[in-house]
Amino acid sequence: PIIDLNADLGESFGVWRLGDDEALLGVVTSANVACGFHAGDPLIMRRTCEAAVERGVAIGAQVSYRDLAGFGRREMDVAPEELTADVLYQLAALDGVARAAGGRVSYVKPHGALYNRAARDPAQAAAVLAAVAAYDRSLPVLTLPGSAVERAAPPYGITVVGECFADRAYTPEGGLVSRRLPGAVIEDAGQVAARSVRMAAEGLVTAADGSEVPVAARSICVHGDTPGAVRLARAVRDALEAAGVRVEAFAT
Amino acid sequence: PIIDLNADLGESFGVWRLGDDEALLGVVTSANVACGFHAGDPLIMRRTCEAAVERGVAIGAQVSYRDLAGFGRREMDVAPEELTADVLYQLAALDGVARAAGGRVSYVKPHGALYNRAARDPAQAAAVLAAVAAYDRSLPVLTLPGSAVERAAPPYGITVVGECFADRAYTPEGGLVSRRLPGAVIEDAGQVAARSVRMAAEGLVTAADGSEVPVAARSICVHGDTPGAVRLARAVRDALEAAGVRVEAFAT
Amino acid sequence: PIIDLNADLGESFGVWRLGDDEALLGVVTSANVACGFHAGDPLIMRRTCEAAVERGVAIGAQVSYRDLAGFGRREMDVAPEELTADVLYQLAALDGVARAAGGRVSYVKPHGALYNRAARDPAQAAAVLAAVAAYDRSLPVLTLPGSAVERAAPPYGITVVGECFADRAYTPEGGLVSRRLPGAVIEDAGQVAARSVRMAAEGLVTAADGSEVPVAARSICVHGDTPGAVRLARAVRDALEAAGVRVEAFAT
Amino acid sequence: PIIDLNADLGESFGVWRLGDDEALLGVVTSANVACGFHAGDPLIMRRTCEAAVERGVAIGAQVSYRDLAGFGRREMDVAPEELTADVLYQLAALDGVARAAGGRVSYVKPHGALYNRAARDPAQAAAVLAAVAAYDRSLPVLTLPGSAVERAAPPYGITVVGECFADRAYTPEGGLVSRRLPGAVIEDAGQVAARSVRMAAEGLVTAADGSEVPVAARSICVHGDTPGAVRLARAVRDALEAAGVRVEAFAT
Repeated sequence: PIIDLNADLGESFGVWRLGDDEALLGVVTSANVACGFHAGDPLIMRRTCEAAVERGVAIGAQVSYRDLAGFGRREMDVAPEELTADVLYQLAALDGVARAAGGRVSYVKPHGALYNRAARDPAQAAAVLAAVAAYDRSLPVLTLPGSAVERAAPPYGITVVGECFADRAYTPEGGLVSRRLPGAVIEDAGQVAARSVRMAAEGLVTAADGSEVPVAARSICVHGDTPGAVRLARAVRDALEAAGVRVEAFAT
Repeated sequence: PIIDLNADLGESFGVWRLGDDEALLGVVTSANVACGFHAGDPLIMRRTCEAAVERGVAIGAQVSYRDLAGFGRREMDVAPEELTADVLYQLAALDGVARAAGGRVSYVKPHGALYNRAARDPAQAAAVLAAVAAYDRSLPVLTLPGSAVERAAPPYGITVVGECFADRAYTPEGGLVSRRLPGAVIEDAGQVAARSVRMAAEGLVTAADGSEVPVAARSICVHGDTPGAVRLARAVRDALEAAGVRVEAFAT
Repeated sequence: PIIDLNADLGESFGVWRLGDDEALLGVVTSANVACGFHAGDPLIMRRTCEAAVERGVAIGAQVSYRDLAGFGRREMDVAPEELTADVLYQLAALDGVARAAGGRVSYVKPHGALYNRAARDPAQAAAVLAAVAAYDRSLPVLTLPGSAVERAAPPYGITVVGECFADRAYTPEGGLVSRRLPGAVIEDAGQVAARSVRMAAEGLVTAADGSEVPVAARSICVHGDTPGAVRLARAVRDALEAAGVRVEAFAT
Repeated sequence: PIIDLNADLGESFGVWRLGDDEALLGVVTSANVACGFHAGDPLIMRRTCEAAVERGVAIGAQVSYRDLAGFGRREMDVAPEELTADVLYQLAALDGVARAAGGRVSYVKPHGALYNRAARDPAQAAAVLAAVAAYDRSLPVLTLPGSAVERAAPPYGITVVGECFADRAYTPEGGLVSRRLPGAVIEDAGQVAARSVRMAAEGLVTAADGSEVPVAARSICVHGDTPGAVRLARAVRDALEAAGVRVEAFAT
């Protein structure tokens, strides 16, 4: 079995720091790097790409709504044509910065509210895909299995890669339990690590009702915004490796 | 003799329009396209690039300070490392957008206050050049002959292209008469056209004191922010062609 | 009968101009002045307030989502607490600027997507009202009759003032026909003027199906973004005055 | 003897945190609250004002250049008229937010690069003062003794209040030793505390060359951006109180 570990990086802005990028780069195989629209100024993007290249971590364009004040977490009714241009701009900017650092963007992952909206809204999903197709049709897009992005991808000729969440409770249908409900987030490190291994090795997760649900994911999303989160990510990686799962980027 | 005509394009933003891009694209051979930091949102950048490609006009990255409210016209003490990253980001973004439109960025021209500051400040000049070198060393930079950008370019291996201004009065030293002084801007279309021809054909301009000054320019900068400006640009081009000067982009 | 005419003003930004504020100030009795979040930088706000004070036009705070790139026309899922703070900030800023110009803000009108969203979403409606109440409970809020803003206002002790649109077709229920449908916007000046008079004098409008619909409005919204729009607004005012309707601000 | 302790607060933005405001509010008597141009979104401004009011700490408007990406630390050539409007806007916005929290703005302190530029540039100094005068002539402005702000103030009828820096080395002329020089910042807590007491009680500081320099300051500026900084501020306050100096805001 083989799995990728992805996390958000480069989400500082100007004088403000967020997340422990240095520590995360020692854990993950794919870095979703902010492109300036929800976080990440050009200098931070450059340093993040340099660090990712140095550590051999794949760089993904974490494209977002234009919303620094809301960190890209607020859904916006952006017209498809505008959204496509916004995503194209961010993707091109990060790729240029990554290439100047000796690397390149090798996948795209929408951020925050755009991730959620594009997962269920065919118009915004198509707008994101159109941007990727306009820039480089060979770049895969990381998304939720079964999302509107996945359904909209074929005509664009774009590969969609599914991800799963080791620290989130799943519904019997294979969706995520809403964060507003109790038990939505699993905090016990041992449990999260064990779920990761099962997801990677068997493609299964135990849903909130105890049923077994298939998870078709090539990547596990981990977090790094708190010291505890980084330790959890480390525990996930250690458990995967101990179980003989190869931890490797899905794109290069 | 051969000369290029360059002008600023794509300087609208969101709902706000600026300049008659459509008309200008029928006149110039090089379009300095705004990259989002002083003007130009991604959708406007995309449409501007598409129109330039369609008309066979070369696309230049008009990079700027991050200052939408001031339209990039206010000098800023940006640290070199930050400025390099800002320029790299803009250049890469526009190039990606241009490539999606079937073209590409073929030169760089700093905008407004950055143009003026980089023309005299070796640190900011070097910061701009470092960005271009990091992205694509083969891209020429359009600047004032004799500027700090020109002087700083050799170690970066970057070609500098000089431009002149047909509607501006020159000092006997070959500099521009400050806009704060009377007579700094020449408004008579016939006079501007005649100066253009002389600059292109003989490499000479009559300075404010009547002396003859050499002008080493491969491009003439024209403006398009008013209907009168576009007519003036048209008159310049017509006069150049009537005089047998080839009007052609310096970069492709 | 008495009626107010309101229009959006001060929607330029930096170097970009929008609308003919000078002409509109000679027509309307209430100016919805942009507060910097969708348009209007501080200098434009100041000049707009000075002009409004000079012409005796009432100043309203045209509060918006924080979205310059989208001109506040894109709905955003802003959390109520954030929205309240955003509206309070804009309202206070404009009021201070207006007072420095010898006037003051005398009402509030949400702009664009916030206007539409708050008209149907009780949470965003309440968030806007909470901001007004926190700043000055005596300021009325201009909205669509029957909107969620109107319904949510009583506990805040805030007066809601209804407005109508002389150039928009109405449904038999008294709502506006969607702009996506044909006939939604009435362009004939004579017809628009006649409808205005009837709305002001009789409180009635003929709906798209020919039925008569009551319109409880103390203000008519006019536009000024094109030369034609200003002429139309002028025609409305002339017709109102010719019909003996007093054209007067609802707030002072 | 009596002295005020001031520090920058409310310098978070959106999701990003900066400084330990809670701890600082237990130490200082005046809070320089960011107004949204270099830091501080409306919700953060509101919470900071509420906390300041609750703790009885005076609120000052920490006005800045419009430069979130640079945290207001980059000098900008802003035209006086624009700068006045920018400062007026920020001041009015924060005052409205403070009043909604049961307090009010009781002084103004320019931030970062604007502080430094206005301290030596009469045009920018006058622009800041003009804004304060336009809003409320009774508000004092906190600045460096002997600065251009102090010199430009009389015609505006504005009171200028001098501040000193307990952790900075002074020149024999009473200026600050540049941060680029060694020894510019004093890190030993005991020394900083002792200097504070002497500044407050005797109006004297020992300059870098050993000479005694008069310091005419009604406020001491302390920092809170690191845990060490807060401890240092606490040590300063404790030493002042132990020496019988009354620690009290200069404005209410």
